[in-house]
Amino acid sequence: MFETKKRVYRFGGKTAEGDGAMRELLGGKGANLAEMSRLGMPVPAGFTITTECCAEYYELGGGYTDELKAQVAEALAATEAIMGKKFGDEKDPLLVSCRSGARSSMPGMMDTILNIGLCSATLPGMIEKTGNPRFVYDAYRRLIMMYSDVVMEKAEGIEPADGQGIRQQLDRMMAELKEAKGYKSDTEITAEELKELCEKFKIRVKEVLGVEFPDTAEAQLWGSIGGVFKSWNGKRAIAYRRIEKIPDDWGTAVNVQSMVFGNMGETSATGVAFSRNPASGDNKFYGEWLINAQGEDVVAGIRTPNPLNEATKTEHNAHLQSLELAMPEVYKELDDIRVRLENHFHDMQDIEFTIQDKKLYMLQCRIGKRTGIAALQMAMDMLGEGMIDEKTAIMRVSPSQLDEILHPILDPASEKKASVIAKGLPASPGGAVGQLVFTSEAAMEAAAAGKKAILVREETSPEDIEGMRASAGILTTRGGMTSHAALVARGWGKCCIVGCEAMKINFDAKTVRFSENGPEYKEGDWFSLNGSKGYVYAEKIETMDASENPLFIKFMSIVDKYRRLGIRTNADTPEDAARALAFGAEGIGLFRIEHMFYGKNSETPLAKLRKMIMSDTDAERKAALDELEPFMKAAIKSTLKIMDGKPVVFRLLDPPLHEFVPKGEVKEKELADELGISVEEVEKRGESLKEVNPMMGLRGVRLHVAYPLIAETQYRAIFTATAELQAEGFHPIPEIMIPVTVSARELEFQKAYCERIRLEVVARTGQTLDYKFGTMIEIPRAALTADRMARTAEFFSFGTNDLTQMTFGFSRDDVGAFMGNYLGNKILDADPFQTIDTKAVGKLVEYGIQGGRSKRPDLKCGVCGEHGGDPDSVFFFNKIGLDYVSCSPFRVPIARLSAAQAAISQSK
Amino acid sequence: MFETKKRVYRFGGKTAEGDGAMRELLGGKGANLAEMSRLGMPVPAGFTITTECCAEYYELGGGYTDELKAQVAEALAATEAIMGKKFGDEKDPLLVSCRSGARSSMPGMMDTILNIGLCSATLPGMIEKTGNPRFVYDAYRRLIMMYSDVVMEKAEGIEPADGQGIRQQLDRMMAELKEAKGYKSDTEITAEELKELCEKFKIRVKEVLGVEFPDTAEAQLWGSIGGVFKSWNGKRAIAYRRIEKIPDDWGTAVNVQSMVFGNMGETSATGVAFSRNPASGDNKFYGEWLINAQGEDVVAGIRTPNPLNEATKTEHNAHLQSLELAMPEVYKELDDIRVRLENHFHDMQDIEFTIQDKKLYMLQCRIGKRTGIAALQMAMDMLGEGMIDEKTAIMRVSPSQLDEILHPILDPASEKKASVIAKGLPASPGGAVGQLVFTSEAAMEAAAAGKKAILVREETSPEDIEGMRASAGILTTRGGMTSHAALVARGWGKCCIVGCEAMKINFDAKTVRFSENGPEYKEGDWFSLNGSKGYVYAEKIETMDASENPLFIKFMSIVDKYRRLGIRTNADTPEDAARALAFGAEGIGLFRIEHMFYGKNSETPLAKLRKMIMSDTDAERKAALDELEPFMKAAIKSTLKIMDGKPVVFRLLDPPLHEFVPKGEVKEKELADELGISVEEVEKRGESLKEVNPMMGLRGVRLHVAYPLIAETQYRAIFTATAELQAEGFHPIPEIMIPVTVSARELEFQKAYCERIRLEVVARTGQTLDYKFGTMIEIPRAALTADRMARTAEFFSFGTNDLTQMTFGFSRDDVGAFMGNYLGNKILDADPFQTIDTKAVGKLVEYGIQGGRSKRPDLKCGVCGEHGGDPDSVFFFNKIGLDYVSCSPFRVPIARLSAAQAAISQSK
Repeated sequence: MFETKKRVYRFGGKTAEGDGAMRELLGGKGANLAEMSRLGMPVPAGFTITTECCAEYYELGGGYTDELKAQVAEALAATEAIMGKKFGDEKDPLLVSCRSGARSSMPGMMDTILNIGLCSATLPGMIEKTGNPRFVYDAYRRLIMMYSDVVMEKAEGIEPADGQGIRQQLDRMMAELKEAKGYKSDTEITAEELKELCEKFKIRVKEVLGVEFPDTAEAQLWGSIGGVFKSWNGKRAIAYRRIEKIPDDWGTAVNVQSMVFGNMGETSATGVAFSRNPASGDNKFYGEWLINAQGEDVVAGIRTPNPLNEATKTEHNAHLQSLELAMPEVYKELDDIRVRLENHFHDMQDIEFTIQDKKLYMLQCRIGKRTGIAALQMAMDMLGEGMIDEKTAIMRVSPSQLDEILHPILDPASEKKASVIAKGLPASPGGAVGQLVFTSEAAMEAAAAGKKAILVREETSPEDIEGMRASAGILTTRGGMTSHAALVARGWGKCCIVGCEAMKINFDAKTVRFSENGPEYKEGDWFSLNGSKGYVYAEKIETMDASENPLFIKFMSIVDKYRRLGIRTNADTPEDAARALAFGAEGIGLFRIEHMFYGKNSETPLAKLRKMIMSDTDAERKAALDELEPFMKAAIKSTLKIMDGKPVVFRLLDPPLHEFVPKGEVKEKELADELGISVEEVEKRGESLKEVNPMMGLRGVRLHVAYPLIAETQYRAIFTATAELQAEGFHPIPEIMIPVTVSARELEFQKAYCERIRLEVVARTGQTLDYKFGTMIEIPRAALTADRMARTAEFFSFGTNDLTQMTFGFSRDDVGAFMGNYLGNKILDADPFQTIDTKAVGKLVEYGIQGGRSKRPDLKCGVCGEHGGDPDSVFFFNKIGLDYVSCSPFRVPIARLSAAQAAISQSK
Repeated sequence: MFETKKRVYRFGGKTAEGDGAMRELLGGKGANLAEMSRLGMPVPAGFTITTECCAEYYELGGGYTDELKAQVAEALAATEAIMGKKFGDEKDPLLVSCRSGARSSMPGMMDTILNIGLCSATLPGMIEKTGNPRFVYDAYRRLIMMYSDVVMEKAEGIEPADGQGIRQQLDRMMAELKEAKGYKSDTEITAEELKELCEKFKIRVKEVLGVEFPDTAEAQLWGSIGGVFKSWNGKRAIAYRRIEKIPDDWGTAVNVQSMVFGNMGETSATGVAFSRNPASGDNKFYGEWLINAQGEDVVAGIRTPNPLNEATKTEHNAHLQSLELAMPEVYKELDDIRVRLENHFHDMQDIEFTIQDKKLYMLQCRIGKRTGIAALQMAMDMLGEGMIDEKTAIMRVSPSQLDEILHPILDPASEKKASVIAKGLPASPGGAVGQLVFTSEAAMEAAAAGKKAILVREETSPEDIEGMRASAGILTTRGGMTSHAALVARGWGKCCIVGCEAMKINFDAKTVRFSENGPEYKEGDWFSLNGSKGYVYAEKIETMDASENPLFIKFMSIVDKYRRLGIRTNADTPEDAARALAFGAEGIGLFRIEHMFYGKNSETPLAKLRKMIMSDTDAERKAALDELEPFMKAAIKSTLKIMDGKPVVFRLLDPPLHEFVPKGEVKEKELADELGISVEEVEKRGESLKEVNPMMGLRGVRLHVAYPLIAETQYRAIFTATAELQAEGFHPIPEIMIPVTVSARELEFQKAYCERIRLEVVARTGQTLDYKFGTMIEIPRAALTADRMARTAEFFSFGTNDLTQMTFGFSRDDVGAFMGNYLGNKILDADPFQTIDTKAVGKLVEYGIQGGRSKRPDLKCGVCGEHGGDPDSVFFFNKIGLDYVSCSPFRVPIARLSAAQAAISQSK
């Protein structure tokens, strides 16, 4: 029935039958062990059963081919020969571990069973050989616990009724023993007590699971192999494969490897190391080790680990002995391996090693994780060393690592010790620490007094802008990833968490709580926010400022060589524009005219805009607009000047008007006086602007169709600013963009007004005025009728925020109420406001580009939604042929990197 | 340069060179005149200059080919020969008219110039010949006024600076003359005074336009011909062609025709007639005439016209002499013509005639306009007479005419005399008369007292349902064509006007006004509404009840033979279902579960739904749902029973929850007591359900993902009702529909719940339960991912209301603020909530059908938006291959007719 073929691949003894390229057959772990062996490194001997045997196991109804059995026996014999011990031997038994090995690591798959081969027959010999009964019974206890849990219970699909699995029961038994004896640590338990505990464990296992714990080395080995295969079809593994779209027939390999022990005395040790410093990127061998210890002791953090070498000692471990000095020869061997691994894999390696009786064993090597700053440092160093080329260097820094570099963050070590009191949506990355304030005013006062503030709001509005700017971080109860607070904060690179629904604010008392009976926090209490994860802490955590790095500049200049997409920025003030320029923006893709009115210190007074909006007649409106125009012109001019020679897209007033209706008696009174009407009349007019669904109401171009005067004023301000700058010798490049269009006729209608005003300004100033006229494509109909739109529009800018709202029918302000449910139930794979939904929204963008270019082949197409700064979305935009993306200033470097990575990976 | 060809076609003298089929070359008017001549009817002789000459005119920079000049001279000579007079003759001059003649009549084109040929040279002869100087100078005055306005000013593109064109100036001069003389009517002006006035007119024309009024017949004729050609490129004509997509190169023809006069004494007369009664459809010759009068006198309504014959005399004109008795021979000739025209054109004709000195002339014939009831009567009569076939009969009744038949309307004659005080959106057709009420309660009291009420509201909510039902008509300030009031009213066939923005309501005083200083109306005042036009009258107007007609039944049975589309109805109660069945519905395409809770007398209490919605925990919610379930089941069962053997689509709860939050202290208190919580808690919970954009918030399937219990209860109610009916021997066909989906996984998620409940009910009742599981496609993403949706969905129902909202980003509740502007500025051709937008929304529907059927070829596709009852939309739906449309009960016959007309016209 079953084909004759190689089913088992040996490794160890500085040689191997497989190699690192055989991930499909050997799994990731098996392939890496083979590769290290081939490189002549001291890997404890063992073998890998191929992934193909997994399917055979199921075909045989849970059995093994004779060929497999024979090949395992053969490989085991070879392993025994290398290790000089025999599996199941009563005198000097070989112990092995058994691990699963899919192509990539997979949740729900069986992890590790250690110490296989310990049984009634081998225990005495093992004790005699090691002279350490406590060590042996502790190893046996661990075997029983792991095996009964993983092989006998989980792999069999047994679900304990009350959630109390065998592992929990055995843990409790051990805890009860310690309690009875008054022990604080496991190490206090004596050999005799461990022996008794093992006997009790086996009885309990029989009682609970109905099967004896296997008492031969052979039975344990095959039980473990079968356990790995069974775990492939465990519930969690299947669910994970569904989501990640991993085919069910890939199967898993099984790795069987000789045990080595770092806890066999003062000549044994264990450690983990990185070929370069994973936090800083320094090209120094960096790691930690413990004498007479097991791998998990290093990780558990009960003992402070020793430094690997003298060069990397810190204030915390300077007093401890380095491996370099303690075992110079072993260290030398390890350091050689480090260099060889890096040269072989061309990347920083994460290494696990064990020293058993002065002999070094390599247990694992893999590409090491690293911080953003380290990723940058290593990429540039390795490029300099000639180890990698430019394209590889670019691919080595992920966009999220670059993001880390651009924002201060909470110190990871300190954060680890703190406890998360609530979670929200990670709206704007980085970390922030400050004292609670509940109003914009309080935030500004705190800033003035040199204090750091965390501004807490239900949600934010344009009125909060100054307070937001003054705060170290922002935390809101409501809103999604593209709510007002999120957008503004991201634009500034300021830490922000939104949609923290657990938070109940009492504005009168200026207190906040996170659960019905939980503690109450008051104004002035210290809070810390992790805006990258959405974690809230009610304590003060240290921050790390990974500030500007000269390497960053150099790296980015390489990045720019490889990208095709242009990168612009969304900026509404000269300050934002200047910041974005410094970050490499090639123009402004979105200047929102309404934003010039935000904030109390804005040069363009909100009060005047309010007056215009609350006008009831054309005459009132005209008067208000005439007052507004010089302010508008000045704001536009200063941004055009900063961006001299680069295009600036001005989007006409867009938001629903009622956003600008004054709230509160004081503001109403102010406006009433200004307009010479009663407060009641102000309220009445405000009321008439209210809408049931403002996002789909009188906004964008609809407003300008209704009130052409408003559009004219904006056109005049743009053209006048342009003419004045030209007269002063500058080269402004204005592009005018009409928002919220649904019909080509809206554009024709606006273009006529725009041209009329342009000719007026030309006549008045004598300047030749060039500009581009285009539209946002942010409503499905605009995308679906893009061919018509392109008759008038010279450029498209896809507003993917609104396009996502309309395509999904998800209000970004209300989506918080169900997005969690949708992501949790895997109805959606990702929040479409963060990463573009390629199945529908992306289709509309593609459709829009094709339609537009069918009528106007040189149509310039960009994106100015939040997606412009999202790496996955940038990949998609590069693929479908957009000309540029525009994002908030802080996202500009990320967009540049993503664009380069997209170009590189898509050209393969 | 120019091809030799026929450029001028003569008609008259009972013969013609052209015929009725030559509309392209001769225009509509010219072709019809030729056809009547060919039929041997007495048409005043003349000729038509072809549309091709229009382009030549422009090619020649405003000139005429020699060939055209020669052919005109020839045709004029032939005309003179027939009429026995010569154009420009000093003794007995022939006068002619000149009219434009495009393929179809077109606004902005030159209409008519009469009396061409009157000039210094011909005036004396004309006076001598007629012996009536007053008649001649009056004709001359009219010529000067028409010619200077149309030819000398408008066709030349002259725009008077102050809007005071030459016509207005001449009108004022004549008014001043009358004032000075104390005359009340034009007829009092003497011949001498008219003569002087003509001289003054000519002086003013020269002053204002800088050109002499032409004083030869020849100059007037060619001036008029040129004027017609120039008007083809007038601003209004060009704008109209743009919108209607009429090619610029079609051109217009020019009709030159001999003048005849019905005002030349007691042997002359003029009249208009219809070959059958256009109001009732009666097969009786019907018309009006006036002795010694001009055509415009009949239309102007200054004199009461005489009846055409004895058979059609009415109480208003019984005392006046009929043409039948006054001029029996002429009447006989006219009646013969009537019969011949109908037999020739196979349709009712609208005729204009003039009798000059006992000689009958036919000035025009065209297909006559008619009321709905007349259209039905004529179609069925002509079918019976063998004049037309079934397909033609079906095409003869327009859907809007059928609609008229189904609703009582305001009596057109009475309405004409009343004055419109405000206009709104014509939300639900028909007429209503009643006394103003301001609350639902008052409407119900009025109904109870046997009074008719007009319910006035800002906008309506589910709470108003009973009051709406009790009213004769509904008038709201806000809302669009698919607002709550509009939808409900249309469903009931009840007259309704929405979005009457001029209306300011004072609810405290129970008064209403329509302008700042206009009159105030109070409760009890009589109002009348024309729901077909959106006209509001502050007075009592008679209504006409065009009630059930046996012809209707017969007509509809013919209609059904020719349609392909299935017709279902949107019905939520057994009463609606029964009405729809009577109107021919073949199933229910939309049963909205939430609607069973509307209205105070509903069997399913809203209070219990409220309780469920305002629950804070699963336990509270479960308890409330358990109470609700029997009510739900009963409502579902009664509808399934009525629809026995026909499919019923149940849509799960859809609207935003806060719509069901109680408003007002009394209701809040009720609910608080019911739930055993405080009023403050009720308010707090209600507040937490508020959304910024509820239309894009927690609704539809999102709600059921968040609260699976709510979905389960509905599934259980549906399956239990089905099982019970089956046990009772009925054949229920339930179809379950999930609303507001955006992702295939939402459907999989719901299907799993639904199946679980089905199996529960199967186990409990022992009934086999069949059903279909499907989804609304109402969000763009659902249409764009329809292929995935169809993996689970067995049917699609396109919810084109919501699909239009999302595709346009138009909130149906807020669209009133700008839709008027959009339609007024021709940015949109039609309200997309009334007629489906084929460019984008329709594209998504097509895309959805194709995608869905690519995965499930037998996928059933329907539409259940308001568009299902809109004729233009039904045409589109038939074309793109939908299986059925579903509409409100009153629209069912209209949908049936539209579907048949679509099938007939699309099969051509």
